[in-house]
Amino acid sequence: MTEYSQYRPLPVGEVPHWDFETDVAVIGFGATGACAAIEAAQAGARVMLFERSSGSGGASALSGGEIYVGGGTDAQKAAGFDDTVEAFTKYLKLAGGPCADEAKCEIYGREALNHYQWLKDQGVPYRGNFLPGKHIEPTDDSTLIWSGSEAAAPFCHEAKPAPRGHVIQHMGWGGGRPLVDILEARARALGTEIHIDARAVALIVDGTRVCGAVVRIDNQDRFVRADKGVVLATGGFVFNDAMRAKYCPDTFKVNSPIGDKDDGVGIELGVSVGGDAIHMDQFFTTCPWTMPESHAYGVFVNVHGQRFINEDCYHGRVSRCALDQPGGKVYLLLDVANFVQPLDLAGITIAGTGETWEEVEAELEMPQGTLSATMAFYNEHARDGRDPLFDKQLPILKPLDQSPFIALELNFETSYFSFFTLGGLKTTTDGEVLDRSGKAIAGLFAAGRCTSGLPAWGHGYSSGLSLADCTFFGRRAGRKAALA
Amino acid sequence: MTEYSQYRPLPVGEVPHWDFETDVAVIGFGATGACAAIEAAQAGARVMLFERSSGSGGASALSGGEIYVGGGTDAQKAAGFDDTVEAFTKYLKLAGGPCADEAKCEIYGREALNHYQWLKDQGVPYRGNFLPGKHIEPTDDSTLIWSGSEAAAPFCHEAKPAPRGHVIQHMGWGGGRPLVDILEARARALGTEIHIDARAVALIVDGTRVCGAVVRIDNQDRFVRADKGVVLATGGFVFNDAMRAKYCPDTFKVNSPIGDKDDGVGIELGVSVGGDAIHMDQFFTTCPWTMPESHAYGVFVNVHGQRFINEDCYHGRVSRCALDQPGGKVYLLLDVANFVQPLDLAGITIAGTGETWEEVEAELEMPQGTLSATMAFYNEHARDGRDPLFDKQLPILKPLDQSPFIALELNFETSYFSFFTLGGLKTTTDGEVLDRSGKAIAGLFAAGRCTSGLPAWGHGYSSGLSLADCTFFGRRAGRKAALA
Repeated sequence: MTEYSQYRPLPVGEVPHWDFETDVAVIGFGATGACAAIEAAQAGARVMLFERSSGSGGASALSGGEIYVGGGTDAQKAAGFDDTVEAFTKYLKLAGGPCADEAKCEIYGREALNHYQWLKDQGVPYRGNFLPGKHIEPTDDSTLIWSGSEAAAPFCHEAKPAPRGHVIQHMGWGGGRPLVDILEARARALGTEIHIDARAVALIVDGTRVCGAVVRIDNQDRFVRADKGVVLATGGFVFNDAMRAKYCPDTFKVNSPIGDKDDGVGIELGVSVGGDAIHMDQFFTTCPWTMPESHAYGVFVNVHGQRFINEDCYHGRVSRCALDQPGGKVYLLLDVANFVQPLDLAGITIAGTGETWEEVEAELEMPQGTLSATMAFYNEHARDGRDPLFDKQLPILKPLDQSPFIALELNFETSYFSFFTLGGLKTTTDGEVLDRSGKAIAGLFAAGRCTSGLPAWGHGYSSGLSLADCTFFGRRAGRKAALA
Repeated sequence: MTEYSQYRPLPVGEVPHWDFETDVAVIGFGATGACAAIEAAQAGARVMLFERSSGSGGASALSGGEIYVGGGTDAQKAAGFDDTVEAFTKYLKLAGGPCADEAKCEIYGREALNHYQWLKDQGVPYRGNFLPGKHIEPTDDSTLIWSGSEAAAPFCHEAKPAPRGHVIQHMGWGGGRPLVDILEARARALGTEIHIDARAVALIVDGTRVCGAVVRIDNQDRFVRADKGVVLATGGFVFNDAMRAKYCPDTFKVNSPIGDKDDGVGIELGVSVGGDAIHMDQFFTTCPWTMPESHAYGVFVNVHGQRFINEDCYHGRVSRCALDQPGGKVYLLLDVANFVQPLDLAGITIAGTGETWEEVEAELEMPQGTLSATMAFYNEHARDGRDPLFDKQLPILKPLDQSPFIALELNFETSYFSFFTLGGLKTTTDGEVLDRSGKAIAGLFAAGRCTSGLPAWGHGYSSGLSLADCTFFGRRAGRKAALA
């Protein structure tokens, strides 16, 4: 029996027969794949979608259903935020840091309001209101939350801040599942033929053009002809230890991957036909240290008792910077006015307490004059409303001076540091997969976390960036494939 | 005219004629290529070597000619160091950090003494003596220097320290050139046919087997048949801005690439036939802050006035960690007992001075109680011979308390931070280029900086690791190709 491989495309001449024939074959049924299918179908293409699991979902369905949108949405306006395309685009570029794809930031900056309307048109409900404060996901059914580092330095000095995390109306956490359900229903209504338990194992090529895929269904290899193109929408590689070791070994510091069979197969399929995988060392990580919300007022120190970040940044940025610190752990310092027992699920433990910061320092076995000096300096300036070192902003900036004091330990190994990968195929803003010389590979498209997109840089991640990227560029990839 | 491409191999059936026929074709004439040619020739193969420049050299000739060797060399023993294979191998793994290739560390750990003898057998002279102190390269013709972080924490606690930087006997800096000259002479003596001004533009494949290369000479495409294999020895990608942007964007923080036309072509050629490029985000950097040597006694702080590393580590490790700090610069603090005017070439400037550390702090416009508190804490403990924060070791650890005090600025943009890339093709210990599934690609071998090898991790780099990797694995690649 022929062994097909994600590492080597099958020449069309060796295809024994066609089991399926379509215009556009979409691989993967998270939000990216669903959006690609919708647009491809609406552009008049016959669309088949192949998903290795037994239903839709992917990492999207495990998310909060939050999409990063700015430039002046109804919810932003209703809450009194005067966001602009310029500020929004600028923030997208800052969030991409040294890995930013300027063209993707610019087109999404310009088109996000239309994309938000499109989401509504698909049936995604938004209550339209703003929920103030620091939230990982809304605990009620609110629409708009702060979901990044917009109001924190250095971002706030370069791009006028506004909240941009737009969340599907859904009571409590987990809005990703209903979001995917709505997109799935829409894809089905438009005639997408969906095959579940169907795992892509190889691409099929006619010369250098991708013209189909080999898909494994019921332990049989099935040959899919895709006359217009294949759209890869398979997610990242967080569940592929070999790929992590080769491209992103820092992820082994932490232990809670987020994803659903995200084994990097789309990246491998893309590279097998000459695709270029970029920024493969980048990853998102977070530990839910802002829950309860009062912990957002805490101060982080590393094992040397030094601060390392303005703690008003997005929880994920703080967590990613934490992971850069030595010693395998960091401490979140709180006073009794802000301390609440941490969530069990977070694996955040109490490492030390004291009537003074000196006592906490001693309990943590830090040298005298380290943590205590850090906190004396911090409190002195916080009382004046200033953070001369890290430029933490009011109102998150406030002194921690009501004893007793508490040091919580965020341990990279034992606390809940969730993570997923951000590196992947290099694509155009139309989802065309680029080869290493920068040319589009005919017949091959990709979007979402098997590509490097809006959430390109782990240190700049903001909630909703990945789903924004998945849905917006998923749509564009599907449409471009249909019109190929 | 057909355009040949480093991104796409040429099927053998499309080769119009053969211009050159050999057993082993080596691409690149730095130390790696020379060593590959020597071993291939000694194994009985006909060898041709193609170099795009007008002579041998590459980045190797720009180096100090220093090779990292341990396990108990003559020079180590003569100087009273009792190094072992175990300690040496352990250090190699620590130096590779999360990117370490354990198999390469182990085989080099076991074989380094033989490799050192082999270098001598080729005619590389070693005076045999040890030059104590902190040196980037010996200023005289000494053989052995400390060239890494062996004696610094955490390395010294896990692997018994010994100096392992073995430098060719050569007066002053720049031993890389005579080292390459010796290896070149040896390769020529063994009958290697050398073609200069010959740039490899594509590989030639017979099915999945590499069987030659297209080489551009005098503006003509020449077709090289290599019956046993091609050895890539082309160096890294420090002069390829597009590759840096896609895989290693942090290198844009600094401005002084080291190399000789290192444009990543070998990596692209390897990937064009299915090779796997790994750890592409890793790079070496250093700023020569330990010159004059008394500056090794300085203390580094970032723009927050915080220390960030035990400064007794290798200058490159300190420099790489410096680059992780915010604000685009770091400061090297010195007292008058240790200060000497920095080298012009380093671009290190005096940013502040003072009779007290408080005055220096004020001159640097740092908030009161930051740098001065750091130095008060440091000096207090240094007087007791301890560095409770970063575990800096004696004798480098000493108080800086003789005023006046000086803060030197190492600016990432304007100081001389040299750098080169460390990521590249994944290879076996025999230099076979592996595909993404982990299988060796028939007929293709690689070594040196177009591969990921012993110097895999920028934060763990030690001088001599790259030339050790180039020469040792270059030899193995050449030999394996010849026996293919």
